[in-house]
Amino acid sequence: MYISKLNYLLTGLLLITQSVFAQDYTTDSVFIKKMADDILKNKASYNNLYYLTKKIGGRLAGSPQMVMAEQWGANALKEAGADNIILQECMVPHWVRGKKEYAFLYNGKNKQSLNITVLGNSMGTGNKAVKAGVVQIKSFEELEKRKEEIKGKIVFYDIPFEETFVRTFQAYSQSATYRSNGASRAAKYGAVAVLVRSMSHAMDNHPHTGAMNYNDSFPKIPAAALGLEDVAVLSKKLADNSLTEVELFTSGKFLPDTIGHNVIGELKGSLYPEKIITIGGHLDSWDLAEGAHDDGAGVVQTIEVLRAFKAAGYQPKHTIRFVLFANEENGLRGGRKYAEEAKAKNEQHVFALESDAGGFTPRGFGFSVPEESWNKIQPWKTLLAPYYGDEFTKGGGGADIGPLARTLNVPVAGLTPDSQRYFDVHHAKSDVFEAVNIRELKLGAINMAALIYLIDKYGL
Amino acid sequence: MYISKLNYLLTGLLLITQSVFAQDYTTDSVFIKKMADDILKNKASYNNLYYLTKKIGGRLAGSPQMVMAEQWGANALKEAGADNIILQECMVPHWVRGKKEYAFLYNGKNKQSLNITVLGNSMGTGNKAVKAGVVQIKSFEELEKRKEEIKGKIVFYDIPFEETFVRTFQAYSQSATYRSNGASRAAKYGAVAVLVRSMSHAMDNHPHTGAMNYNDSFPKIPAAALGLEDVAVLSKKLADNSLTEVELFTSGKFLPDTIGHNVIGELKGSLYPEKIITIGGHLDSWDLAEGAHDDGAGVVQTIEVLRAFKAAGYQPKHTIRFVLFANEENGLRGGRKYAEEAKAKNEQHVFALESDAGGFTPRGFGFSVPEESWNKIQPWKTLLAPYYGDEFTKGGGGADIGPLARTLNVPVAGLTPDSQRYFDVHHAKSDVFEAVNIRELKLGAINMAALIYLIDKYGL
Repeated sequence: MYISKLNYLLTGLLLITQSVFAQDYTTDSVFIKKMADDILKNKASYNNLYYLTKKIGGRLAGSPQMVMAEQWGANALKEAGADNIILQECMVPHWVRGKKEYAFLYNGKNKQSLNITVLGNSMGTGNKAVKAGVVQIKSFEELEKRKEEIKGKIVFYDIPFEETFVRTFQAYSQSATYRSNGASRAAKYGAVAVLVRSMSHAMDNHPHTGAMNYNDSFPKIPAAALGLEDVAVLSKKLADNSLTEVELFTSGKFLPDTIGHNVIGELKGSLYPEKIITIGGHLDSWDLAEGAHDDGAGVVQTIEVLRAFKAAGYQPKHTIRFVLFANEENGLRGGRKYAEEAKAKNEQHVFALESDAGGFTPRGFGFSVPEESWNKIQPWKTLLAPYYGDEFTKGGGGADIGPLARTLNVPVAGLTPDSQRYFDVHHAKSDVFEAVNIRELKLGAINMAALIYLIDKYGL
Repeated sequence: MYISKLNYLLTGLLLITQSVFAQDYTTDSVFIKKMADDILKNKASYNNLYYLTKKIGGRLAGSPQMVMAEQWGANALKEAGADNIILQECMVPHWVRGKKEYAFLYNGKNKQSLNITVLGNSMGTGNKAVKAGVVQIKSFEELEKRKEEIKGKIVFYDIPFEETFVRTFQAYSQSATYRSNGASRAAKYGAVAVLVRSMSHAMDNHPHTGAMNYNDSFPKIPAAALGLEDVAVLSKKLADNSLTEVELFTSGKFLPDTIGHNVIGELKGSLYPEKIITIGGHLDSWDLAEGAHDDGAGVVQTIEVLRAFKAAGYQPKHTIRFVLFANEENGLRGGRKYAEEAKAKNEQHVFALESDAGGFTPRGFGFSVPEESWNKIQPWKTLLAPYYGDEFTKGGGGADIGPLARTLNVPVAGLTPDSQRYFDVHHAKSDVFEAVNIRELKLGAINMAALIYLIDKYGL
């Protein structure tokens, strides 16, 4: 009796739910399927990714490749159907790698090459290499305990990239501080350079770069990342006392800040032209690779959403800005400028979405939105489920839209692709076009298009 | 009032649910995490896959490589901790590719090579090549309409591999009949050979083989698959009338049936030793590749579940059989033999699970089980969700456990990995070790281990 009463009530609730939403959701389901079919059949995103990665390649802020990428991006957004193109100027850092870095380990007079990459934003060793003994450090706690041993040495941060986190970004969150802050923390105790274990699960020896920052209170010592096979080599030499010194040469430096641009395509809103929805990825990438997953994927997905809207004849109510950000990797100047301008012009921003976690099969989105918006979007999961975008988690967004969220309290979200392969290629020379599966990339674009469509239609 | 009453009832139901399951599920969650951590950290599955693919390679039933694979499999199961190893003998087909196949297209005296692979089980062209005009056919309906044009010709089945199916196995289901049955359907109208468009979304030119079957009522004409770039080449030549003939040479043939084995490792059940749970993949693979995703992945995942059970100190209640099936690709003799023996010995089979859809990040499982079992397993989704195994769908199993399901009405399931990349490499020479991401493979093994553990503990 209890159960049958409950069933009755549950059935009633289900019917209410269906009657409230049924009509709109059928329309939405059909429209999203139309966009999805088009995206899966169309080759534009594939061709765009090919051009960006193979014809332009690595494109750090300030580089000639980044200038080419901006021109390409503006054209691609125009071809995809933008009403107008805005090049939003911003000053960007101009760090250059300089002469090719190298490292050798020495056992007396025997020497062996190590596969390294200089860390982004780091200063070089000067005209000659640094040569010193090595202290292997497993945590900042250990560094503090052994601070007396550091002076005159190269600190080797050997922080394993945690394998037991199913969501691999957790491993990155845990390890990235050693790349970002390790140099200054070691310099405080007199270290002459740092080598950082690459933040990767990869089974290869490619070193993985990424941004680091100096604390101005301490000497700006050189910093490089070491490939994982060479991490094993170096560790073994240290374990059996057969290492005498490591020699390291790097020549990174900053040139004066230069001009870059957020490349923006707009679709003007039919009903609320003054209210803005932003979708984007970052156009810049590290110089040592093609920047295919990071973040060529987010860039071409952003352009693909625009193309798919136009192909489906969709006229948005809100103004939608498709933004290719100028400088995520080593400065975040693009995202900051975008938020500054929004604030200065008193723009009304409804929502911002970023794709910057690789072009893999999507799992869903991470949302940083008010509780009422969170509740409102829950029924949309059923619309995204056919395209694998229905894992909604709390918390999320993206580096480039972070300033917008912080400055103007804009609700934001980030696409969450499957993360198993991301750190195999992240910031390493293996981040190439061939590492992207075009269907996985497109599924991301489908879910981005669907989410933007739903927010444009129903608000947040 | 209505709502608050409903809330009260729902809360009550939730509390009941939690009180019934809470204690066990906490234990289960902890135990599954323990196995998951071990699997993610352990290198055994990686090393096993490396050996099977790189040291043994392609291993069609009857081949010397398959004999090596059986020996390797028995050793690997033993090392993983099987109580005993059973080599279950069965007769297997022994089809061989023979001399390397080739094809040329002709425009008058100009000739151009086409990238083909002979279809498995097909007969060769004899000592000399077949040379004939080509009829391009888009469906069996078109074949029937144009049956008068077929005599003396090579039929080219140009069936696009549907791009709009998010679940790519749907595209395969739709297209595979042209590979399986196309030759005899064309031979009925006098065709001298068939070329089949490869069943793939790949952006390369590798032809994809697979089993075909002849209808004994018609001549056994040669059959080959064509790489996708050459599909475009051939189509273009046909469209602009610049093709005169295609020349095709194949030399596939059957040798007498030979002896193969299902390689079985057993863990004896502590409580119900007579009740059997089966988990498996197939050891055989096409000869033209390393058989990494198809089905090296399923094989090493099966062995990994055994290793993880032993490492976790898990003593199953039921007898668990870890089965490496002898012949899935071109005969299914392994699966048939397994079911025959089960029937002959009046074995009690509780459940069977197969992994034969690639070593990609899992999405869940497809179940062919009675309705009461289906309802019983629903709460387990929460236990698998942390490892991405929580998409439970109705329908599913696997080719090798199909006979068991049909003969003895055994409930079965199949692992459902993400399918976007599967048909890029399926039955093509690109199905190599390097195409498998070890973390994705391991996530499959984790979910398989968890599901078998839950069924062993709670029954179905």
